Amino acid sequence: MQSSTTKPRVVICRNLGPDVMPLLEGRSDVEVIVWPEDSSCDRAWLLEQVKGAAGVLLMFPEKADKSLFEAAGPNLRVVSTMSVGYEHIDLNELTNRGVKLGYTPDVLTDAVADVTVMLALMAGRNAGSTIDLVQSGQWPKFRWAPFAFCGPQISTLPSSPERTIGFLGFGRISQATLKRLIPFGITSCIYTASPNSPPTHERDSAILSQYPTLKTLRRVGSDELARSSDVLFVLAPGGESTKHLINEEFLRKMKKHSVLVNASRGTLVDSDALAKALREGWIWGAGLDVVEGEPNITLDHPLVKEPRCVILPHIGSASIETRIDMGTLAVNNLLAGVFGEEMPAQLKV
Amino acid sequence: MQSSTTKPRVVICRNLGPDVMPLLEGRSDVEVIVWPEDSSCDRAWLLEQVKGAAGVLLMFPEKADKSLFEAAGPNLRVVSTMSVGYEHIDLNELTNRGVKLGYTPDVLTDAVADVTVMLALMAGRNAGSTIDLVQSGQWPKFRWAPFAFCGPQISTLPSSPERTIGFLGFGRISQATLKRLIPFGITSCIYTASPNSPPTHERDSAILSQYPTLKTLRRVGSDELARSSDVLFVLAPGGESTKHLINEEFLRKMKKHSVLVNASRGTLVDSDALAKALREGWIWGAGLDVVEGEPNITLDHPLVKEPRCVILPHIGSASIETRIDMGTLAVNNLLAGVFGEEMPAQLKV
Repeated sequence: MQSSTTKPRVVICRNLGPDVMPLLEGRSDVEVIVWPEDSSCDRAWLLEQVKGAAGVLLMFPEKADKSLFEAAGPNLRVVSTMSVGYEHIDLNELTNRGVKLGYTPDVLTDAVADVTVMLALMAGRNAGSTIDLVQSGQWPKFRWAPFAFCGPQISTLPSSPERTIGFLGFGRISQATLKRLIPFGITSCIYTASPNSPPTHERDSAILSQYPTLKTLRRVGSDELARSSDVLFVLAPGGESTKHLINEEFLRKMKKHSVLVNASRGTLVDSDALAKALREGWIWGAGLDVVEGEPNITLDHPLVKEPRCVILPHIGSASIETRIDMGTLAVNNLLAGVFGEEMPAQLKV
Repeated sequence: MQSSTTKPRVVICRNLGPDVMPLLEGRSDVEVIVWPEDSSCDRAWLLEQVKGAAGVLLMFPEKADKSLFEAAGPNLRVVSTMSVGYEHIDLNELTNRGVKLGYTPDVLTDAVADVTVMLALMAGRNAGSTIDLVQSGQWPKFRWAPFAFCGPQISTLPSSPERTIGFLGFGRISQATLKRLIPFGITSCIYTASPNSPPTHERDSAILSQYPTLKTLRRVGSDELARSSDVLFVLAPGGESTKHLINEEFLRKMKKHSVLVNASRGTLVDSDALAKALREGWIWGAGLDVVEGEPNITLDHPLVKEPRCVILPHIGSASIETRIDMGTLAVNNLLAGVFGEEMPAQLKV
């Protein structure tokens, strides 16, 4: 049932919690409809409530596809997603109908960089197998040995004073990850970027000058990235153009003691090739916050029980502070879009 | 059976691998006896082989107690342990017999600091529960929600620009941990030190001047350490004088969103009190590389299945590079001790 008010209606697909909801509840100039359960919103409910709405705030599990736009009708001015990705939005439908899209970039950079560093450490130092040892009650039977559970050390030491980290994609999250790893003693940083992207000498000189202990920062080709990285971070957009950039050919070139971290999109890595690389020892280990086909990653997935593969269920941005920021930005995008003001973070489609 | 050679005999309780053993195998001036199995050395074998030996190289599982010293007899000049701790050595027996003790400090600082940072990240960001979700095949059924699996973020962000980390003990590993966390945006560092230790103003001023983004570095009392730390690192020696410094009284003072990390000795933390603190939400989470009573930590231990507690089986120094360095240093201590030369790392008892 629609209310008879003439205030613009906004549909909120999730309760955003006590830190964010007051931004909406305190407004007398919008009609706010919130999915009442603590779960993904029901599709039928959404399609009903969105009729005549001026804005909708949604997340990954909710799709803004043709059926949603058709249900909403011509009043819809803005879709605001609480995410940096927008795979769940039909951009053609959106632009054809003149609807604006708000998203939440930047605010999650630090949260994802934290998890990226965590995954690099966990994959190198056998966190998966060692946690499992304790959780399965096997610690008492564990026979200590000088090299048991030893993995490659990410930080340098006098007897091993050089480390090269590589980035597939060198945007904000990669740069925030590099910043965090500098005091671990990283001496060299290499990265690849999209062939179409402009030269970045100036930016790189500026970054390099910030870190006196970093000797080199260079854009390289894929071959050098694979061969030279001690830890390789995959931090690039998903989609067809980057699908399976990390494939068998790439993995075969990597160092035997290297670690692969993917905290961007699962599609960038060929899971079968990675499982083979781990099984056959082409690389040392892997830390993944994303897996192609997620969340449908079941126990028979080739990577799930691979002892040198740590898998997290896409929690890169899942910190309390960051999700509050993301929710706040999503609400502000929504309200600005509804009232025709400049949105804090509009995706220019 | 003892050989008839007059070269000094050294007994090596473990094969130290292809990077370290050549240091011994290449010597023509010592008789080298190595436990032949890939396991803890048999006690009876050790007591037999050590008869008349000039040196013995051992690790945690082997005890240098009265029976060992008696079996060795008056030829014994040095015990070299491949560890920084020496709880397994009877120091009274050692000194009474004029035997020197070699150990391996410093070389493991970076490896342990890496794991310390890893545990802080894992405990805050729910690594235990989230890995378990994937490993138990539940990811497909996981209902995404804005704050699902969200934990406190160690790195600062514009909306949350202050972080205080605390150290119980502020030696080399603590300082190496601080260094690694500076680029996460830590603004304040506090620590407690043994009441007998001298003032450290000068050292602290020097550290503070290295990190322009760190606003304060202060030695504080236990009460302030508990109340002010967002992440509290326990990095102090074990033994009676530090037993259960982290107890119920301490934990009750901590912040609800704080994280406790112990990467030093299990005895510093009262496990029952910590389990209660986690269950009742006095603190957010814990990351432990050590647990009192280890390795006898079975499934009925109060911390093992606590979802906000990540436990590793004492792998702080378990990196390939560091264990090679530790083994090398242990061999060099042994040989120097046997030949009456200055040992690279002698514990002055």
